[in-house]
Amino acid sequence: MNIMIEDIHGFNERFLTDHTRKFNFIEDQFNRAHINVQDIIERLRTFQVAIPSWALGSGATRFGRFSIGGEPATLEDKIDDAGLLHALTRSAGSISLHIPWDIPGDIDAIKQKAAAHGLFFDAVNSNTFQDQRGQKFSYKFGSLCHSSGDVRQQAIEHNVEVVEIGKALGSKSITIWLADGSSFPGQHDFRRAYQYTQDSLREIYKSLPGDWRMFIEYKPYEPNFYSMVIPDWGTSLSLAEGTGVNAHTLVDLGHHLPNTNIEQIVAILMMKGRLGGFHFNDSKYGDDDLTVGNIHPFQLFLIFNELIRGIENNTSQNPDPAWMIDASHNLKDPLEDLMQSLEGINIAFAQALIVNRKALREAQEKNDVTRCQELLQEAYRTDVRSLVAEARRQSNGAIDPIGLYRHLDVRKQLIGKRGKHGFATGL
Amino acid sequence: MNIMIEDIHGFNERFLTDHTRKFNFIEDQFNRAHINVQDIIERLRTFQVAIPSWALGSGATRFGRFSIGGEPATLEDKIDDAGLLHALTRSAGSISLHIPWDIPGDIDAIKQKAAAHGLFFDAVNSNTFQDQRGQKFSYKFGSLCHSSGDVRQQAIEHNVEVVEIGKALGSKSITIWLADGSSFPGQHDFRRAYQYTQDSLREIYKSLPGDWRMFIEYKPYEPNFYSMVIPDWGTSLSLAEGTGVNAHTLVDLGHHLPNTNIEQIVAILMMKGRLGGFHFNDSKYGDDDLTVGNIHPFQLFLIFNELIRGIENNTSQNPDPAWMIDASHNLKDPLEDLMQSLEGINIAFAQALIVNRKALREAQEKNDVTRCQELLQEAYRTDVRSLVAEARRQSNGAIDPIGLYRHLDVRKQLIGKRGKHGFATGL
Amino acid sequence: MNIMIEDIHGFNERFLTDHTRKFNFIEDQFNRAHINVQDIIERLRTFQVAIPSWALGSGATRFGRFSIGGEPATLEDKIDDAGLLHALTRSAGSISLHIPWDIPGDIDAIKQKAAAHGLFFDAVNSNTFQDQRGQKFSYKFGSLCHSSGDVRQQAIEHNVEVVEIGKALGSKSITIWLADGSSFPGQHDFRRAYQYTQDSLREIYKSLPGDWRMFIEYKPYEPNFYSMVIPDWGTSLSLAEGTGVNAHTLVDLGHHLPNTNIEQIVAILMMKGRLGGFHFNDSKYGDDDLTVGNIHPFQLFLIFNELIRGIENNTSQNPDPAWMIDASHNLKDPLEDLMQSLEGINIAFAQALIVNRKALREAQEKNDVTRCQELLQEAYRTDVRSLVAEARRQSNGAIDPIGLYRHLDVRKQLIGKRGKHGFATGL
Amino acid sequence: MNIMIEDIHGFNERFLTDHTRKFNFIEDQFNRAHINVQDIIERLRTFQVAIPSWALGSGATRFGRFSIGGEPATLEDKIDDAGLLHALTRSAGSISLHIPWDIPGDIDAIKQKAAAHGLFFDAVNSNTFQDQRGQKFSYKFGSLCHSSGDVRQQAIEHNVEVVEIGKALGSKSITIWLADGSSFPGQHDFRRAYQYTQDSLREIYKSLPGDWRMFIEYKPYEPNFYSMVIPDWGTSLSLAEGTGVNAHTLVDLGHHLPNTNIEQIVAILMMKGRLGGFHFNDSKYGDDDLTVGNIHPFQLFLIFNELIRGIENNTSQNPDPAWMIDASHNLKDPLEDLMQSLEGINIAFAQALIVNRKALREAQEKNDVTRCQELLQEAYRTDVRSLVAEARRQSNGAIDPIGLYRHLDVRKQLIGKRGKHGFATGL
Repeated sequence: MNIMIEDIHGFNERFLTDHTRKFNFIEDQFNRAHINVQDIIERLRTFQVAIPSWALGSGATRFGRFSIGGEPATLEDKIDDAGLLHALTRSAGSISLHIPWDIPGDIDAIKQKAAAHGLFFDAVNSNTFQDQRGQKFSYKFGSLCHSSGDVRQQAIEHNVEVVEIGKALGSKSITIWLADGSSFPGQHDFRRAYQYTQDSLREIYKSLPGDWRMFIEYKPYEPNFYSMVIPDWGTSLSLAEGTGVNAHTLVDLGHHLPNTNIEQIVAILMMKGRLGGFHFNDSKYGDDDLTVGNIHPFQLFLIFNELIRGIENNTSQNPDPAWMIDASHNLKDPLEDLMQSLEGINIAFAQALIVNRKALREAQEKNDVTRCQELLQEAYRTDVRSLVAEARRQSNGAIDPIGLYRHLDVRKQLIGKRGKHGFATGL
Repeated sequence: MNIMIEDIHGFNERFLTDHTRKFNFIEDQFNRAHINVQDIIERLRTFQVAIPSWALGSGATRFGRFSIGGEPATLEDKIDDAGLLHALTRSAGSISLHIPWDIPGDIDAIKQKAAAHGLFFDAVNSNTFQDQRGQKFSYKFGSLCHSSGDVRQQAIEHNVEVVEIGKALGSKSITIWLADGSSFPGQHDFRRAYQYTQDSLREIYKSLPGDWRMFIEYKPYEPNFYSMVIPDWGTSLSLAEGTGVNAHTLVDLGHHLPNTNIEQIVAILMMKGRLGGFHFNDSKYGDDDLTVGNIHPFQLFLIFNELIRGIENNTSQNPDPAWMIDASHNLKDPLEDLMQSLEGINIAFAQALIVNRKALREAQEKNDVTRCQELLQEAYRTDVRSLVAEARRQSNGAIDPIGLYRHLDVRKQLIGKRGKHGFATGL
Repeated sequence: MNIMIEDIHGFNERFLTDHTRKFNFIEDQFNRAHINVQDIIERLRTFQVAIPSWALGSGATRFGRFSIGGEPATLEDKIDDAGLLHALTRSAGSISLHIPWDIPGDIDAIKQKAAAHGLFFDAVNSNTFQDQRGQKFSYKFGSLCHSSGDVRQQAIEHNVEVVEIGKALGSKSITIWLADGSSFPGQHDFRRAYQYTQDSLREIYKSLPGDWRMFIEYKPYEPNFYSMVIPDWGTSLSLAEGTGVNAHTLVDLGHHLPNTNIEQIVAILMMKGRLGGFHFNDSKYGDDDLTVGNIHPFQLFLIFNELIRGIENNTSQNPDPAWMIDASHNLKDPLEDLMQSLEGINIAFAQALIVNRKALREAQEKNDVTRCQELLQEAYRTDVRSLVAEARRQSNGAIDPIGLYRHLDVRKQLIGKRGKHGFATGL
Repeated sequence: MNIMIEDIHGFNERFLTDHTRKFNFIEDQFNRAHINVQDIIERLRTFQVAIPSWALGSGATRFGRFSIGGEPATLEDKIDDAGLLHALTRSAGSISLHIPWDIPGDIDAIKQKAAAHGLFFDAVNSNTFQDQRGQKFSYKFGSLCHSSGDVRQQAIEHNVEVVEIGKALGSKSITIWLADGSSFPGQHDFRRAYQYTQDSLREIYKSLPGDWRMFIEYKPYEPNFYSMVIPDWGTSLSLAEGTGVNAHTLVDLGHHLPNTNIEQIVAILMMKGRLGGFHFNDSKYGDDDLTVGNIHPFQLFLIFNELIRGIENNTSQNPDPAWMIDASHNLKDPLEDLMQSLEGINIAFAQALIVNRKALREAQEKNDVTRCQELLQEAYRTDVRSLVAEARRQSNGAIDPIGLYRHLDVRKQLIGKRGKHGFATGL
């Protein structure tokens, strides 16, 4: 289903007086602080986050899956759902495909459908962590790191094919996340696994057009529980440097050991010009894949603080990072969850934009630690929701996306159309 | 397939000289240290660990499953596999059923089959973490803690039914693990969830025969990622005390936050007479469900050290704990993995049995910390493998169970009989 | 030095227009949402947090201490500093003494001094984790849990003496934090250590007046690194229940293993009527003792959410918890740090007060998880700073306490008076 | 005091029969497995671990220090204690100095004293984490990363001075551990802190003789609790690569976030030729600095397994790593603790030496995970204590070092000589 712009405007009308009052207050505040409100709004309007094709259905844990109904069973359905999200929020302007879950049949038709929703295709994702029907060699014991050259070759070719599909769709990057690792001491020769992976990445890299980028994701554990071949940012960076100038590290917020200082990693990667992309989610224990900003919103703000610092002091020509939400929707309606994630992201981004960087730099120089803290909290404690809503409104999005989604009873309509037990490919 | 006792004896012959030499050495050592070898061997021979019916097939992560072939598709097959394990190791003398995955059809036939393998039925396990086909209410948002009385009643009745099945099979206990929890702040009213769970447990408890026990398992996270209703031993103990004298806490080694001192929990629970049972596995990160003793063998030894201390000073009439392996076999042949787990358990148990407890107590009294450490390491560093093998041999088991298993090409035979793509219910 | 009320009013004048504008906006918002602003303000004005006598000087790590100068060397100085804090913030209305660091000489004079600052004496704290000059037995290997009855008796008597001092000062509670534990496997007999501790606590409890309460603190590690006798809330609760109706658990935010859900612990303890007190701080790794709300402000809000839920549904007659800041000031001016902590606490408290509890309860009943999250975030994302400032202003405190503190150059004056290298007892 | 070789031989006599019986058994076992026992013994005899000068007295936590008496108050005393350790164990053949705690007065005399004990001087350690009396600038807010060029220059010059002292003593390397970091979000500009540190390291590096190496240590937290400038191996490696070919990463076992796979880090660093050195200790929670092999002995074995793999396949010309014990002795006699640490290290080393590497490689190639595990456990479960003792015996050390130490009542003699309340510099 599509959301009509009239629906949005009509629904916005209900909140306009209230919204305007709040926005005027914040605008007045910002004016007094010599912050240019419209600049912030433009930054927010421009900021777009990719929706992964596999996050539009109900997620699962290893203990089971509970469907919500109306899930998108085809790539077309997924693009429609992403389009719906974008219509409501105007900040989900691209889609990230996962191959082979979402191999497009008619490329042109798919591109037209996406374009009609105002969506483009962001990074394509390969999958060598599951075996597909008819696949010659199994990835049970790894893919790019596998002891067998046949398996490595198959995995390389799969990645090259993913690049081909991405080229046809207009993507400009491939994200490689490897489940490769070991679950038992002794299973892996760490060095050989690293070396094979490095060699395989170089092979894939050769197939990349010059304007493409390769994102190398890291993760400390799961689905392997003793070692992962690319467990941390240090390994990913080292492999990227060994692969080529267009190879970068991708940071997924949930892929860290307990208590890791992620914002520092982000800062250092940008300093080195190697931060390729970002997978947003939130977590309390491990790779919990929860709604962004739901557990550690202050950490998210601190990360954005470094991202903006890095973008504004881009001495190393770090390219614009690719942004994507990578969450799993086990309990909530995926579309509602994604709207909450987008809100969490935009709030953190807006708060980071209003940090008084000049004053912060001075306080840092003087080691005035109290003041440093005050400056960050001044930004973080500001209620920027009306600013985020105003950015959406100016882009023809909904002031209250979830409210409108519920008002239009979208999920019920999707169930009516697609059935109660439709099943979306994905985790 | 069955392992013939002749096969075992025949294969043992090959190793007998070597085994005897090693065993004689350790026997001589023990004699000098005034440790009664045959007592230790008897303790080892008597020690039996339950095999869960769901651990005999390939496990999976949320990212996928890789089959090994020849997996047991029926309860009968599973009992056969458990019997095979027991024949080889003589230490897997019982089976623990999971309902509804393994509801027996013909109870008498099942009991006879088990008896033929020398197996009895240990704790039965209920399942309210998945929805079953045709189930009236969903457990998506919990079971015994659910806000709806209808769902709680359904879950209570399921548990009562599990007890009924257990009674028919000769079990004497039920293990209740609840996936109940929340993944988002605000989702749960913690107090109400606790209270409903307490009330539900009391209801189930009413259906328990007087000689039965209820084991209440705890887990800090997964499949819920913000809170679990029973996250830790304190909550489990509190609920057990609120339920009845035959309600106990069950400890699963993988169900703890990072760095938890599990052996202390075990000691305190036994002191309070509330340690009901034990799920063995090993892990590096979370509930990784790896082979027992594969990551933290010294911790396993320390746990057994407390268990033996508790059994030998049973001032609180703690009943004999129920022992079970609860691992997931994603990469290895499940039967080989279980044999490795049994070996790991027996080694830790044997090492803990030879701790010089009198000397340890004296060193503790004097706060001679160096000596305390020496005493534990004296036991832990002893190579007790020939002792464990001798206990197996005396019980007609294999000196080298995995060697014989491979020698007989058991997996190949199972595949021949059951097919390459058989699928066992379970995780 | 003292802060004059005229100084405060004078400094407040500068900000009054700006403050009023912000406050009017939030007042208007609340009126529309049918939240009674003045009720919230009264709750904030009444809410008082104790300052520990040992937190007014520079803290240290085991790697060293860096003094700030002007540190309070006597109990009188410490009361003055606490009084100064209270004058500025009007929310630090009590002081918590640590014995033997702060044994009062002339009790009456000390009481008068405190009263002149509007301060009362909150919980007194015993210390059996360090040896004092001339002490007969060492606590190197524990105190209340020690294998030697002599040591235990000495530690009991010390605690009884602390109660006596507290009685003279008008305190109504004692906080017992034990460093007791072991750093090496085998060092402790866990059960004996628990039992001795239980017995010792009962002895101390006998000396408590009927209107006093005993708070039993827990901590998983440090300064012992293998086991602590009271590592977690479950042990503390169990000991409290074994001690008496006026024995309660005390929660220190930094005393938990990684990823612990503290808000759930708070909720369950209050449900059981056993939450005695709270030590506020923040941390990223362990017991880091950082400024409150500096790392995990959302978690702090969630904890306050449970506290208010517990206070408003006090079915178990949980007494009002004792609140205290327990942080270490290694890098910042201790007084500035404490003002930032008080601000962090008040903000979280105010945000938790405006949660729409009725709507939350309904959403929880219906398992409308999206809505549950929205409701908490609606409160958390509200900028309540002007509310907190208004509560201070109405109590004759400073709108901007740190601003005034710096304006008056307080630290410089303290250094002038007390010297550059004064040293405060404490950690 | 000195241990006479006659004392050692005399004491060894008592155990010789028993020792020989055990050793003969293991020798026989190894012969059957075609392992050359004498080769292993030679490797053990050659393997020497440095003792840090600051680990010979009682350690402390931030909560206090409990002295043991007889502590070495001077560098001469420390060298004597290290010599005593070496005489007993023959595996502590060097000493690692910490400047400015142990600045030698008369260099020649110190060198002669060390030589008389058979000790050489291993890596020298700088200290910029404490302020020394009379120091011009404070390191409160960092040293090599400090925002002030003056402070950085002072810290650089200190390191250069440490190199000078090391040169005089015959050291060949400097270990740089920086406490530099931040405890509050916003305090540090991560990028600037990194850049200043890189620049400073390059400055220090210039002063290094061509045959010297620089070891750059990393640590995730403590004494700073929000960020450390060099938090992980990735940062250390990156800085080392940016400094020069003789700059390497130093791994301290206790300096990792929970659950880190340290053995993988070791393997990758060696593969890159950048593993400089190793600080041994053990820990359960953080940088607990406990006796080596006391908590995670299997992990230690796995680390040695990678070290040997790296040494035997040294394709990247990784220099021989520098080995040192870095523990803190809060509860035990430091000398006893160090002997236990040396034993733990030697056992792990010996076990790793007997891994059947050829079979392991084959099993890895075939992904025979069960077999991989069996092969590692075959080595780990072997009781190699008599092998380690034999290596000591052949080097004129004690079969039972702690036994002899106690037999000679060394601590009592040290107290008699140095007093009960002597205090050693250090942590």
